[in-house]
Amino acid sequence: MGEFELIRHYFAAAACARAGGDVALGIGDDCALLTVPVGEQLTVSTDTLVAGVHFSDPCDPYLLGQRALAVSTSDLAGMGATPIGFTLALTIPSVDPDWLSEFARGLDTMAAGCDMRLIGGDTTRGPLSMTLTVFGRVPVGQALLRSGAQPGDLLCVGGALGDAAGALPIVLGEQQANTVEAAALLRRYWSPQPQLALGQALRGKATAALDISDGLLADCSHIATSSSVLLVVDQAKVPLSDSLLQFAGAEQALRCGLAGGDDYVLAFTLPADAFPLMQAEGWPIHAIGHVALGEGVRLVDAEGNLVSVSHRGYNHFTS
Amino acid sequence: MGEFELIRHYFAAAACARAGGDVALGIGDDCALLTVPVGEQLTVSTDTLVAGVHFSDPCDPYLLGQRALAVSTSDLAGMGATPIGFTLALTIPSVDPDWLSEFARGLDTMAAGCDMRLIGGDTTRGPLSMTLTVFGRVPVGQALLRSGAQPGDLLCVGGALGDAAGALPIVLGEQQANTVEAAALLRRYWSPQPQLALGQALRGKATAALDISDGLLADCSHIATSSSVLLVVDQAKVPLSDSLLQFAGAEQALRCGLAGGDDYVLAFTLPADAFPLMQAEGWPIHAIGHVALGEGVRLVDAEGNLVSVSHRGYNHFTS
Repeated sequence: MGEFELIRHYFAAAACARAGGDVALGIGDDCALLTVPVGEQLTVSTDTLVAGVHFSDPCDPYLLGQRALAVSTSDLAGMGATPIGFTLALTIPSVDPDWLSEFARGLDTMAAGCDMRLIGGDTTRGPLSMTLTVFGRVPVGQALLRSGAQPGDLLCVGGALGDAAGALPIVLGEQQANTVEAAALLRRYWSPQPQLALGQALRGKATAALDISDGLLADCSHIATSSSVLLVVDQAKVPLSDSLLQFAGAEQALRCGLAGGDDYVLAFTLPADAFPLMQAEGWPIHAIGHVALGEGVRLVDAEGNLVSVSHRGYNHFTS
Repeated sequence: MGEFELIRHYFAAAACARAGGDVALGIGDDCALLTVPVGEQLTVSTDTLVAGVHFSDPCDPYLLGQRALAVSTSDLAGMGATPIGFTLALTIPSVDPDWLSEFARGLDTMAAGCDMRLIGGDTTRGPLSMTLTVFGRVPVGQALLRSGAQPGDLLCVGGALGDAAGALPIVLGEQQANTVEAAALLRRYWSPQPQLALGQALRGKATAALDISDGLLADCSHIATSSSVLLVVDQAKVPLSDSLLQFAGAEQALRCGLAGGDDYVLAFTLPADAFPLMQAEGWPIHAIGHVALGEGVRLVDAEGNLVSVSHRGYNHFTS
């Protein structure tokens, strides 16, 4: 048995590779077998992380395992899906048992938190990278698409934005920080929590949704384009954490909140009458703007005046 | 729009990305949506190909596109699945429109032949590699597993073996050849044809099956282990093509047939009474041995004497 085949057995023995749930057959045959309940559809998404491009190398393999699975699973949250499992295609330059053990422990931690199972994959030799394909299920017709936003809807997000982007200078080694605030931001970067429960709660309520991976303004433009509407973002309403405000200052914090994509918080549009009901149920959601006739994304200040985003350094967006 | 986002749009416009079939929602949202018919299960498999490890670089991108999809789709054949579609996670060092165009044309060609659809994926910058995740469906309980081989079954394969392995010295540039035979072998290497129809025909008949990707003897050992049986391979019955025999000579041809895994032909076990019925239906199948009580794989000559595979250079196998 070669060392790479040994690794496959190693992952097959990981806690998150246990059978059960909708996984009828896991690791070990030509294919895994998934059972999709009658009346539901399968949701599928694929993401690749490349060393030196999507994460620094070397980095803590435990944190990398957590983050890799969270980034992919967040796409299930953006569809309102119930998680099933994932495949892991891992390419590594050499076999380092300590690295693999910590990476698998990070995967296990995130998998347990997200109710995900490792159902298969591939391990190959080459420059460090990983492709995770995630699977979920959603009742037919209830998937949260990007294309249903209606003029008059509120534009909402599922929590504070920009924390992970605020941590980026520390992650990249450009800045040293050992404060409580820095630690809070770093947790958001390395262990983003896919908003799966919120996504499921938005089924039948949100008219459009996605997880913010490219940054609030960029991802709003995806909803605007898919739904053929204008999204108006009130920058004074963008929720920013105390940690971020303290660590980065108000101006940089807002910049992170508008352009940072690493939090994996949901953005969605909601009919105005649904918003108070969701809030009453205790969902920590924030209305940060509204949907209007038109196209694109418009950023406005507290007085409703247009903010020229190009002056703020976001010149790939027009308003 | 960045150049990598342009590429995503480019793939979204490829012929194989058309919607329809079991693909309820293709490229463009957080996830794709697949509909699995009632009474069927989803089959999933993931394979990574890394430049310099799984294929030479540079190589013809059209042929690479064909081969990448064929290698992955063959796992669906090994399960007896009906193809649905695939995701493509493509990592490229830089954007070369000619390369991408030819690669996509290769994917399209193979996708059309296999009735596969591109349903999503990711394009990232980094050292050249690709991870394809393929999806199929199979009636509940009819997937062809590795674990059901019974003593008394025949061991069969779906066609001539070793052609692609025979082409390997040419592929690697170690040998020059412009003969008709060499061209035939190269076609088998670059454009393997997943035996999807055969796999589906074996539903309810084969007791175990897989596609040969590691080599006949290695893959037989997977069936033997999963089924807790002994597989006896009669080396005189291993089907070898005239092209391979002419190109490589009898001894090297047999070596390719026993150890070469790049043909992606099915290997399966079949109750003895099912074999003539399959042959009568015109399936080009070959009985090359049988299943017995015991464990592992035993290679025997025409007189039934044990062939010491370690003497033939396959010392990672025991018989």
